[in-house]
Amino acid sequence: MAKIGIIGAGSWGIALSVLLHNNGHEVSVWSVIPEEIAMLKEKREHETKLPGVHLSEDILFTDDLQEITADKEVLIMAVPSPYTRSTSKMLKGLLKEGQIVVNVAKGIEETTLDTLTDIIEEELPGVNAAVLSGPSHAEEVGRGIPTTCVVGAHDAQTAKYLQNIFISPVFRVYTSPDMLGIELGGALKNVIALAAGIADGLGYGDNTKAALITRGIAEISRLGTAMGGRPETFYGLTGIGDLIVTCASVHSRNRRAGYLIGQGRTMEEAMAEVKMIVEGVYSAKAALTLSQKYNIEMPIVEQVNKVLFEGKRADEAVNELMMRGPKSESGGPVW
Amino acid sequence: MAKIGIIGAGSWGIALSVLLHNNGHEVSVWSVIPEEIAMLKEKREHETKLPGVHLSEDILFTDDLQEITADKEVLIMAVPSPYTRSTSKMLKGLLKEGQIVVNVAKGIEETTLDTLTDIIEEELPGVNAAVLSGPSHAEEVGRGIPTTCVVGAHDAQTAKYLQNIFISPVFRVYTSPDMLGIELGGALKNVIALAAGIADGLGYGDNTKAALITRGIAEISRLGTAMGGRPETFYGLTGIGDLIVTCASVHSRNRRAGYLIGQGRTMEEAMAEVKMIVEGVYSAKAALTLSQKYNIEMPIVEQVNKVLFEGKRADEAVNELMMRGPKSESGGPVW
Repeated sequence: MAKIGIIGAGSWGIALSVLLHNNGHEVSVWSVIPEEIAMLKEKREHETKLPGVHLSEDILFTDDLQEITADKEVLIMAVPSPYTRSTSKMLKGLLKEGQIVVNVAKGIEETTLDTLTDIIEEELPGVNAAVLSGPSHAEEVGRGIPTTCVVGAHDAQTAKYLQNIFISPVFRVYTSPDMLGIELGGALKNVIALAAGIADGLGYGDNTKAALITRGIAEISRLGTAMGGRPETFYGLTGIGDLIVTCASVHSRNRRAGYLIGQGRTMEEAMAEVKMIVEGVYSAKAALTLSQKYNIEMPIVEQVNKVLFEGKRADEAVNELMMRGPKSESGGPVW
Repeated sequence: MAKIGIIGAGSWGIALSVLLHNNGHEVSVWSVIPEEIAMLKEKREHETKLPGVHLSEDILFTDDLQEITADKEVLIMAVPSPYTRSTSKMLKGLLKEGQIVVNVAKGIEETTLDTLTDIIEEELPGVNAAVLSGPSHAEEVGRGIPTTCVVGAHDAQTAKYLQNIFISPVFRVYTSPDMLGIELGGALKNVIALAAGIADGLGYGDNTKAALITRGIAEISRLGTAMGGRPETFYGLTGIGDLIVTCASVHSRNRRAGYLIGQGRTMEEAMAEVKMIVEGVYSAKAALTLSQKYNIEMPIVEQVNKVLFEGKRADEAVNELMMRGPKSESGGPVW
């Protein structure tokens, strides 16, 4: 059994603490917010982010970075993606050479186009970064609903070690060498979720949404492959699987913001109404920049950007997607 | 503008008659049931199968096979898959050499493992068979909801001709040479839809369903590729796209039957309650036979067969899927 420190006490960090505790590990959870730690210690429940899930007395909570990092076999980085860099900076000097750090957040840094494990390895040279991703609503993992995820790592030994740490009868874990593909899929799916939400908001149906999901993952795969990811990753659990969960969910902030925009709100109005960071809005910009850099055709990403940032009407954007010139499905000469 | 005969007046045949009429074609629809034709002529609506969708006076209805086949540029085979062979036999001697016949049904013949265009070409030598498939609930196409489909044909000329026939501002059509992949995806998705329904019936969540969909299309793709289909087809609109629509839909008979089984009914009880042909039950057998013939590992298909035909408990089947030995996501040596 391993000593595990979870950095970040959001819904995903808390759900993973329950899973890993049930797997028999010694689990500690850190938050930057002392009041959050006090609440967790007292109530043994995260009342706002994962209500109804009891947290065993054996799970330790701390706001002390020294404590969360000392003597841990595995550290899990579970802060929201905009805080990955600042939190990594705070960890400087606290980690041993070769420390395993598993990123479980999703995003691409807008300014640098770095993935989150890129950021961790830049700020904390010498650590062994890995990633855990897949179709995994925290609410369901907290309740023990059967879930699958993928661990990506630089070497097979680390991947298999982490697979053993996380795997349980209700949490099936696959391994993969394709850290880049895993992280790109997780970040870019939010753009397609915005598009799916827009279609829902316009009153379109399941046909339209399935088309956006299918053509959306094709765009992500084209870009991601050009960047060095493996095609099979984008059609696996961390790509299409996670995209399906996000587009189906009424809880997804990205889908919800899209829905409001489809109903006629501006991007600013939608963001104000959702009241939380809508990551897809930032990923949309990053995706467009990347598509231009790698010269990849991404019509859905383009139209989402026009709706978000150029005031284009949502129904016109969908019409434009439907009316592009007739094509073969996979492009290129095919017969 | 083309003269088009639609053979079969179910929800999909009727929805396509509306689409093709709106595209400016001369459309006739045939049914083997005289009462159905009389109702369609009188009410200008299919009251049971596509209620609320008005059928223009310009759409002709007939129960005369001679009339539906005479001088048609395109015939559309829209009968349920168990009737593809018998209907093809009835058309013998009525079709000209090179007649384009577009299959729009989904299924594999249980006894022969033939695809539906295989059957059409066996029974009607000399015709030019093609296929139209994709994520396309008839109810939504009838209402003009944006939808995408793929036309598969033996040659590019036929595919492009049919693309032009079907395409509209709300119906985007791609072309593909991979008729086999299109038809396999359409037939086998119903097995996975049963599994997704079972998971829903057991009270599992979106995580479980997304995993079944993602791993399910991977199984279909492994089998379909071994049979000669193209991998990209299974990850396109007629594969994963159609699977997503089917698993999301509360109207899918396959998902519904799975749901009842997940709640504890036997296969026979579920079939009786759904009251219609549950195609996935037959495709499940065909898929298992094919997986053995081509020596392809298909754990979800196997467990669905055990639940359907060997009385295995649904929760035990899911547990077994979750507890298989730890694996890499794409199989094989990967680092």
